[in-house]
Amino acid sequence: MSGPPDAAAGEPEQWLATAHALADLARAVSLRWFRTPLDIHVKADHSPVTQADREVEALMREQIGLRHPTHGIVGEEHGDTRADAPLVWYLDPIDGTKSFVCGLPLWGTLIALVQDGVPVLGLIDAPVLGERWSALRDGPAWFGATGHTPQACTASACRELADARLCMPVPDNLGPAGRAAVEHLAEKVAVVRCGGDCYGYALVASGHLDIVVESGLDAHDFLPMVPIIEAAGGVITDWQGRPLGPQRAGDVVAAATHALHRQAIQRLAPRSR
Amino acid sequence: MSGPPDAAAGEPEQWLATAHALADLARAVSLRWFRTPLDIHVKADHSPVTQADREVEALMREQIGLRHPTHGIVGEEHGDTRADAPLVWYLDPIDGTKSFVCGLPLWGTLIALVQDGVPVLGLIDAPVLGERWSALRDGPAWFGATGHTPQACTASACRELADARLCMPVPDNLGPAGRAAVEHLAEKVAVVRCGGDCYGYALVASGHLDIVVESGLDAHDFLPMVPIIEAAGGVITDWQGRPLGPQRAGDVVAAATHALHRQAIQRLAPRSR
Repeated sequence: MSGPPDAAAGEPEQWLATAHALADLARAVSLRWFRTPLDIHVKADHSPVTQADREVEALMREQIGLRHPTHGIVGEEHGDTRADAPLVWYLDPIDGTKSFVCGLPLWGTLIALVQDGVPVLGLIDAPVLGERWSALRDGPAWFGATGHTPQACTASACRELADARLCMPVPDNLGPAGRAAVEHLAEKVAVVRCGGDCYGYALVASGHLDIVVESGLDAHDFLPMVPIIEAAGGVITDWQGRPLGPQRAGDVVAAATHALHRQAIQRLAPRSR
Repeated sequence: MSGPPDAAAGEPEQWLATAHALADLARAVSLRWFRTPLDIHVKADHSPVTQADREVEALMREQIGLRHPTHGIVGEEHGDTRADAPLVWYLDPIDGTKSFVCGLPLWGTLIALVQDGVPVLGLIDAPVLGERWSALRDGPAWFGATGHTPQACTASACRELADARLCMPVPDNLGPAGRAAVEHLAEKVAVVRCGGDCYGYALVASGHLDIVVESGLDAHDFLPMVPIIEAAGGVITDWQGRPLGPQRAGDVVAAATHALHRQAIQRLAPRSR
């Protein structure tokens, strides 16, 4: 329903149809839990995780097993199944669990499909907002909102840091080096917004934000962003400018244009003092 | 339309009807500007302010002038008119302009009416989310969402910091003393979410968050929160526990219950070292 207009042809289109089916399911179930009293459990990393999180992922894994029994699955909540298969799904049922637990709408369901180490499909769903972004590698990137026909979306044409709208982590959540790097970037841009979780990347794909920087992400957090940002015309790499893949550590920078990305990488680079 | 079921009787009800009419107008106009290319101007305080901000406030002031020509108006964008009148409207057309400029939905229109220094009416509208909270002093607090009948809302029953969901500013945006105070509080609660602007108070009124702490607010930022939080059963004061009014400096703490508020005030108090 929120999917692209034509999803019926080859194998990648089948994967995309699966991703939309998973997101439809995740949206329906997660919204049933949103803003209800929650039994908050604290994981080893102290992030709150809810029953919604686990229920949604279990349902998504079941669907993948039915539709693509040979595919692997790596999920935030329930671990790895056939993680060495040629095609592996990465699932984050509720990215932004803090927002979810506090009743804020900026959480989302993240889905990626990785083929031989390369992310070939990405999907970001924002259930409360009724918004969804999705893409196959080589585009286009699709944006769908409840009640509207999905449309191709594109990143902004912003080429200069001085004009850029930046979304970055709350500085206290970074280590000293990461904090210094991000602040070195932030001092050159037009507008800085802290926080936003997965939603920041979606806004870059739609041209409303120009740069997102994050640090310490897991693969299931950033792999879905790669096909979406690239299909929208943007650039997404680690802080050294290297391509992102399942084995890469999660320091991520996404920018609307190559020119902007190059300048962001320069500002994020460690400096001699 | 998003107003309370019965808004036709005495003078306070007329004020409430006016507030809803202003918010309807603000919502229609601000959404026309949202996620369109913006001509960002930088004010003396470096916060981005948009044409939407100024256009919305001008329209609201015009409506107040027509409906209540003796009332005063204090607005964020266009200054003071009869600010010494017995009844004064406080307007913040777009609270959370950074969110607005970056395409994020967590901005809102804030409206308060102050009678002889006491906030007697408050309204928080979140146009993108189609959500609105409003109250007259002495309640009830109303929550309305597009497509749903408005309902009375109430704060949570949370009485212990250890169970509380806290929304606080990004620590870097506070001075050293404010930062120490807020962090002293944050270390005792269950969940901390940074940022959220006006939306955090709305979530306290609806029982999804338990505490909001902010610092350095202007009167038009916090006056609308007072009737809403109190009508929902919560408590809102400055960090010393004093009532909030137009002359009070803007260090604000809102909590779901008296017990929780008392503990929050204790944690925020300056400590000898």
